[in-house]
Amino acid sequence: MTKAHGADIPAEIRNRDAMDPLGHLKARFHVPDGLVYLAGNSLGPAPLAIFDEMETAVRSEWAEGLIRSWNDAGWFSLVETLGDRLGRLIGAAAGQTVICDSVSINVYKALQAGLSLRPGRTTIVAEAGSFPTDLYVAEGVVAGHPGVRLLLEGVDADRLEDLIDEKTAVVLVNHVDYKTGALRDMAALNRIIHAAGAIAVWDLCHSAGVVDVQLDAAGADLAIGCTYKYLNCGPGSPAFIYAASRHLDMLSQPLAGWWGHAAPFAFERGYRADGGIRKLLSGTQPILSLRAIGAGLAAIEDVAMADLRAKSLAMTGLFMELVEQSCRTHGLELMTPRDPRLRGSQVSIAFADGYPVIQALIERGIVGDFRAPDTVRFGFSPSYMGFEEVYRAAMAFNEVMNSGSWRDERFARRSIVT
Amino acid sequence: MTKAHGADIPAEIRNRDAMDPLGHLKARFHVPDGLVYLAGNSLGPAPLAIFDEMETAVRSEWAEGLIRSWNDAGWFSLVETLGDRLGRLIGAAAGQTVICDSVSINVYKALQAGLSLRPGRTTIVAEAGSFPTDLYVAEGVVAGHPGVRLLLEGVDADRLEDLIDEKTAVVLVNHVDYKTGALRDMAALNRIIHAAGAIAVWDLCHSAGVVDVQLDAAGADLAIGCTYKYLNCGPGSPAFIYAASRHLDMLSQPLAGWWGHAAPFAFERGYRADGGIRKLLSGTQPILSLRAIGAGLAAIEDVAMADLRAKSLAMTGLFMELVEQSCRTHGLELMTPRDPRLRGSQVSIAFADGYPVIQALIERGIVGDFRAPDTVRFGFSPSYMGFEEVYRAAMAFNEVMNSGSWRDERFARRSIVT
Repeated sequence: MTKAHGADIPAEIRNRDAMDPLGHLKARFHVPDGLVYLAGNSLGPAPLAIFDEMETAVRSEWAEGLIRSWNDAGWFSLVETLGDRLGRLIGAAAGQTVICDSVSINVYKALQAGLSLRPGRTTIVAEAGSFPTDLYVAEGVVAGHPGVRLLLEGVDADRLEDLIDEKTAVVLVNHVDYKTGALRDMAALNRIIHAAGAIAVWDLCHSAGVVDVQLDAAGADLAIGCTYKYLNCGPGSPAFIYAASRHLDMLSQPLAGWWGHAAPFAFERGYRADGGIRKLLSGTQPILSLRAIGAGLAAIEDVAMADLRAKSLAMTGLFMELVEQSCRTHGLELMTPRDPRLRGSQVSIAFADGYPVIQALIERGIVGDFRAPDTVRFGFSPSYMGFEEVYRAAMAFNEVMNSGSWRDERFARRSIVT
Repeated sequence: MTKAHGADIPAEIRNRDAMDPLGHLKARFHVPDGLVYLAGNSLGPAPLAIFDEMETAVRSEWAEGLIRSWNDAGWFSLVETLGDRLGRLIGAAAGQTVICDSVSINVYKALQAGLSLRPGRTTIVAEAGSFPTDLYVAEGVVAGHPGVRLLLEGVDADRLEDLIDEKTAVVLVNHVDYKTGALRDMAALNRIIHAAGAIAVWDLCHSAGVVDVQLDAAGADLAIGCTYKYLNCGPGSPAFIYAASRHLDMLSQPLAGWWGHAAPFAFERGYRADGGIRKLLSGTQPILSLRAIGAGLAAIEDVAMADLRAKSLAMTGLFMELVEQSCRTHGLELMTPRDPRLRGSQVSIAFADGYPVIQALIERGIVGDFRAPDTVRFGFSPSYMGFEEVYRAAMAFNEVMNSGSWRDERFARRSIVT
């Protein structure tokens, strides 16, 4: 990668950065010199605090503290203390969120918990356009529940709403679509789901940290999400799972490991689930990765999510405005809704040849990504990015498209991970 | 903690250390000054290489490399590359071991995989004295399979062997008992399990890294284990799971996340399991914790496991010899078998008042642990420890017992994590 496109920045753009009330957040992150990083919807950059945090975790807590750190460094309760902090960023009161395991594992728990709350019901409803792991895991859950079927929006009906009825146990829905960037109205959909007596499971992977999620206020039942995208907590950092407190008594999930036990250190022979949110835990958590989560949250938790959301919308709006003409010229479709109420924090452009376009941009220091078979994605973070970066990215995109430079052979070679 | 007991060390003990062919390994670990660390069966100490490794993982790979590191730093294949390296330490040829998730999650996968290989069979056999999470997870699995029952050695019959018959689908067994330190004969038990047509799942938590485990040679079917005890890979570091290659075609498991898909980046709608060991993966793994595993393995993988095992047995044998008299005097039972073929790498002493004994020893820099309701445990590692430490620990134990100093009130206060 080389330095990002050195376009002259218009005064109006510079002005927006100068007036930005969140402009100070940028200094809390390490973004490599000259890079415009638009892949934070895949992996967020490192918050600067991480360097000290990991040093402390490795040298003081593990190497010096050893087993004492389970108590003295609070390792055992990190899943809850960090969970409550993350909960504040997604509108969840304390005691309803834990950090643990992967998104896939938590989807499994959430679907099983949903089924446990609605015994006798026979369908799980999801989106065919869901991030695939959600569907794979739903398949795995359904295979273990003879009589329960998986119905998909986009396959079994055009609209999710048309699949929800008195047979529906659980509706698994992405808050923001990972491909198009479209945002669901959580409160409105919850009303429809609840009117049918079903349970809503929200996948917040692409909204937590950039959308003003209000789980409690919107009446969500269960939610899951990752911490390594817009929450900037590190590669593959542990995921989270939320359950509304009204469901905690009744729900159960089968990954009944010792961390979910009411008395994990009593070493009882039989499983007795914890009465609170810890019942959604299973086994021992990876402490080094978990420790990084504190640094990620600390970088944004002292500002209002509504302000982050407002800036995010201004950024995606500006980018769409700036690339619209070149998309039209080259017959490319902007997949992301123009209505700010309907989009998350990314701009997606449908283009089957998008892979080499992304490679050509990366060579110019503009890092977006491509998702098979035809989606070019640019993720915008209101925390480590300003309007100047938005402008540079748009100008580079226009230039790569208009010059046709992306057609160069060297951009066609694929890596394992796209 | 203060410096460990400063007993004069007999020449015979010093001699054993001087002659120790593994004596050079000690310099690869950070054990806090003056500490005799006998809790490596709970959390191993930090290998020195970890400091650079984490620095590289955080600064170069995450902060500078960002999403490129999924390819350039091999993040995506770490589960396999590290899995194969770990496999060599437990007698598993390449392509049969992956590092992922927690032990509890992997027990769930292994039991489900075992059931998938033996459809129609109706029992899972396990040990009532198993580490509890294995039983909790087994309960969770059984609850999802109507018609399948969990039978326990110690409850339904005295001997595990008496529970194994033509109804048995899976036998879940601890290679080394976490309380007593007793070691099972893996090959012999596999023969009994296979004679009944059942599947053996071995929990290697307390044997991997100190016992010369030979999964392939012993005919094991599935195995799981942790990396944070005798493998010294960090607090809560991801676990491992092994499946013999002969079973990979047929087995399935329900935690069907995208990392287990045959083409994870094709974003197909339906789940198609990978044909190899990756089918036991589920979601994205915590890369920082995963990166630490390389340092843990590197610290012991260039010596022969048979040599580590020989030294381990010499250490536990010496300790038992040295504490035998004081145990007898105070009516305490040595739970660990004296026969070297029958023990792992820990010495356990049954004592309901063991908690304050451990606290009194910790105050002297001798760190063991206590497991409710009545087990004092001392774990011996042949890698970062010499015979001098064994001697000091035994002398301190004898002194604490003989003086009665453990009865002091200040040793009675419990922490969350015991």
